[in-house]
Amino acid sequence: METQTTAAVEAPRKDSFDFPARLLRGAGQVMFQNNAWTGFFFLIGIFWGGYQEGFGLVAWGALLGLVVSTVTGYLLGLPSDDGAHGLWGFNGVLVGCAFPTFLGNTVWMWLALVLCAALTTWVRTGFNRIMAPWKVNSFTFPFVFCTWIFLLAARAMHGLPPVHMSDPTLPAAFTAAGHFGFVDWLVWWLKGIAQVFLINSWVTGIFFLVGLAVSNLWAALWAAIGSAAALCIALILGASGAEVSGGLYGFSAVLTAIALATVFYKPNLRSAVWALLGICVTVFIQAGMNMLLAPVGLATLTAPFCIATWLFLLPLIRFDDVEQVDHSEWHHKR
Amino acid sequence: METQTTAAVEAPRKDSFDFPARLLRGAGQVMFQNNAWTGFFFLIGIFWGGYQEGFGLVAWGALLGLVVSTVTGYLLGLPSDDGAHGLWGFNGVLVGCAFPTFLGNTVWMWLALVLCAALTTWVRTGFNRIMAPWKVNSFTFPFVFCTWIFLLAARAMHGLPPVHMSDPTLPAAFTAAGHFGFVDWLVWWLKGIAQVFLINSWVTGIFFLVGLAVSNLWAALWAAIGSAAALCIALILGASGAEVSGGLYGFSAVLTAIALATVFYKPNLRSAVWALLGICVTVFIQAGMNMLLAPVGLATLTAPFCIATWLFLLPLIRFDDVEQVDHSEWHHKR
Amino acid sequence: METQTTAAVEAPRKDSFDFPARLLRGAGQVMFQNNAWTGFFFLIGIFWGGYQEGFGLVAWGALLGLVVSTVTGYLLGLPSDDGAHGLWGFNGVLVGCAFPTFLGNTVWMWLALVLCAALTTWVRTGFNRIMAPWKVNSFTFPFVFCTWIFLLAARAMHGLPPVHMSDPTLPAAFTAAGHFGFVDWLVWWLKGIAQVFLINSWVTGIFFLVGLAVSNLWAALWAAIGSAAALCIALILGASGAEVSGGLYGFSAVLTAIALATVFYKPNLRSAVWALLGICVTVFIQAGMNMLLAPVGLATLTAPFCIATWLFLLPLIRFDDVEQVDHSEWHHKR
Repeated sequence: METQTTAAVEAPRKDSFDFPARLLRGAGQVMFQNNAWTGFFFLIGIFWGGYQEGFGLVAWGALLGLVVSTVTGYLLGLPSDDGAHGLWGFNGVLVGCAFPTFLGNTVWMWLALVLCAALTTWVRTGFNRIMAPWKVNSFTFPFVFCTWIFLLAARAMHGLPPVHMSDPTLPAAFTAAGHFGFVDWLVWWLKGIAQVFLINSWVTGIFFLVGLAVSNLWAALWAAIGSAAALCIALILGASGAEVSGGLYGFSAVLTAIALATVFYKPNLRSAVWALLGICVTVFIQAGMNMLLAPVGLATLTAPFCIATWLFLLPLIRFDDVEQVDHSEWHHKR
Repeated sequence: METQTTAAVEAPRKDSFDFPARLLRGAGQVMFQNNAWTGFFFLIGIFWGGYQEGFGLVAWGALLGLVVSTVTGYLLGLPSDDGAHGLWGFNGVLVGCAFPTFLGNTVWMWLALVLCAALTTWVRTGFNRIMAPWKVNSFTFPFVFCTWIFLLAARAMHGLPPVHMSDPTLPAAFTAAGHFGFVDWLVWWLKGIAQVFLINSWVTGIFFLVGLAVSNLWAALWAAIGSAAALCIALILGASGAEVSGGLYGFSAVLTAIALATVFYKPNLRSAVWALLGICVTVFIQAGMNMLLAPVGLATLTAPFCIATWLFLLPLIRFDDVEQVDHSEWHHKR
Repeated sequence: METQTTAAVEAPRKDSFDFPARLLRGAGQVMFQNNAWTGFFFLIGIFWGGYQEGFGLVAWGALLGLVVSTVTGYLLGLPSDDGAHGLWGFNGVLVGCAFPTFLGNTVWMWLALVLCAALTTWVRTGFNRIMAPWKVNSFTFPFVFCTWIFLLAARAMHGLPPVHMSDPTLPAAFTAAGHFGFVDWLVWWLKGIAQVFLINSWVTGIFFLVGLAVSNLWAALWAAIGSAAALCIALILGASGAEVSGGLYGFSAVLTAIALATVFYKPNLRSAVWALLGICVTVFIQAGMNMLLAPVGLATLTAPFCIATWLFLLPLIRFDDVEQVDHSEWHHKR
């Protein structure tokens, strides 16, 4: 009952060597796409954005995290089906993006990245086992949880310098985004999509949209809607200008939008309304968690997406005449 | 197994139009009373206290939150039985009290109140589904959780001014309550009951006691005991004077007392001792959470009641010869 | 399904009077040893270390907490089998060590100690019920959770003076351990073992190792390895000198090492690698939680051990050909 029964449900598949495809699918699964081409475009976007920012280490970190977490799945003998769908790697690739983004470039940072990326693979197995009775998935929360541990630890260890993390501070006054033109909004909107992988580049946002469109046009559409709606809400409600212009209100909303509108519900009018509500709630969770984590100087990562999506999936609200709602595994949906 | 089986257990009931009664029962269910008259007295107390404080917005917020969360239950097609017992509305009415209490009077505050009140209805469904295997209920935690999100977010959004929230601060020195007379204690004791709905008025406390007595004398008695015992413990242990005189040590203890002594255990000597222990623990949780949340400037709301009551229900300790202890649904008990 | 089925599984045992042995086993179970002699050596170590530090109150607190929590198990009629294995007392003995360590010597401190020690007994029953579906145990988390409540509350109540707690502070710069010799490392290593019971004395560490060896040589070996490995990692990564020299990076790692290498997996090469990984992760969780709790001035207690061990047990990774992995109850293993 509490073991991974999903592997048994599917027909046994020929476990031929497709390690590179599994890696690429791992990158694609960050946005729920079980598609190697999607992952390919995502990685291109990460490398482009990383080097464009003068921060190519992020891209190499992403690649290392992806490889380590995927290999860990083999080493631990986890259900092969998950690996074939890229579900071993999507947390690791995010770990790989986050470590060089927040920590200084030391040997210990890279070793900690390897440990953390590997850790996400079995933490995901554990978290999914916990959530199985309620038919929900841990999403990117293994990445969030494990990365939080190491980012917090970095403040207590000289070997992991937290040089790019914001200083711990009590929530205080801030400046809202001023008046800007349409081009600014366009850049912020695309950055909101790019920030899913912690990349601060609007060009990367275009690569990501193309990658999504290759796999699923609805996913590309809702990613675009998610970032745009979150941007509007953040602007209207007067959120901090630095965060709005960096796309930091967009990335969690993008994931919530894809999840609710295209993965766990079929795209239709009712699920569209549900997804828009989910985007709204994600924005408030994002703002709230920014404040909650300020005293320890921690980024929310994609936790707002996880929490919002759980809140909208757990009640098992139905919008069509399916027999059963099972929100546990997304790769069976296509 | 994880769906709401309670609706199926009860005989199907004629779902005639009783929307006003459902609203009033929703107010009553904040203190576990499935009774429209109780809810009526509670609302009278809220309006009286609100206008007495020169803060009538709180009362209108309560009414709005109650209506929105109840209507949401209809819109989502949640099990009608819950709605008939007022279980859709009790979180929403508290949201409606909390928003004007802590936030400034802007259009966005009212829209956020509507979103948050609606959110509690399906978050309650989700939380109850999570807790069903252990036969406990989410109590007012959907209100606490959802309101925390928006109150935290208010610090990051100029559209939701956190004007009545205390500033974020590290826990520091404070002044205990000085020596006061019997009349002061009487006022503080009644305010402890009124603060269940965040109302700082001793008259409201009397309305609430009357409302409870209309439905269940034991509940009125234990509400009185809960507030008095918590006041004594807080005074003896030298808690902060401002919080003691505002009744802020009472409201969670009131709810714990009603829950343990009258709802989930039959009133008898053993359950009385158990409830007194629960009141003690609630006071320490209240004090502890005040400190825990100080750095983010957040109120505990009724979280101490939820946590204490879970700690005392989860072990399934039995005090009489019932066959089975089921702590999941309180409205079946009468 | 969610009740404690373990009592039913074992053959009924003669419940003769063995209260002193149950107490001693309770002390031993802090390090997973169902052995009265182990507990005897542990208590000797606590008394020696307490008086050596000029802080004998800690030892008497330990004894009081042990007695109160064990007696509570009788009073509540909890499954007698748990009591016979010392599982009622191991949280209480830790509460008894923690209260005089952090709080001033007042009457209210001793009464709060009694309440908190008793509370851990039924909180453990509740937490174990929650975790039963995933076949894991709450370990020392009832001690951690209940003690946190009271330590936080102490900042809000003059009757419980938090005189030995560190002040709330935002995470800030610190000094790493300087260059020291082999004898220093030896002392820090032994203190890491002694700190399991919050004792800052290297002699106590020797008593604890002897106590473990009396029951299980593997446990003694892995306690030694756990503290040594954690010390190395903390030194190499440049952790705070005061914490390293006080053994504060060791105690959680000691418990993780015993749990993973000797209790929940059979000692072999693969489980040894797994345990070493667990020790690494425990050190990062320890460092991270030190930072996380700094703004509220709270000690991590043994939470890093609990979290790390859960993360390594939940995925149910198997290293030998057992039919089923059940991580819920450790006293059945010997």
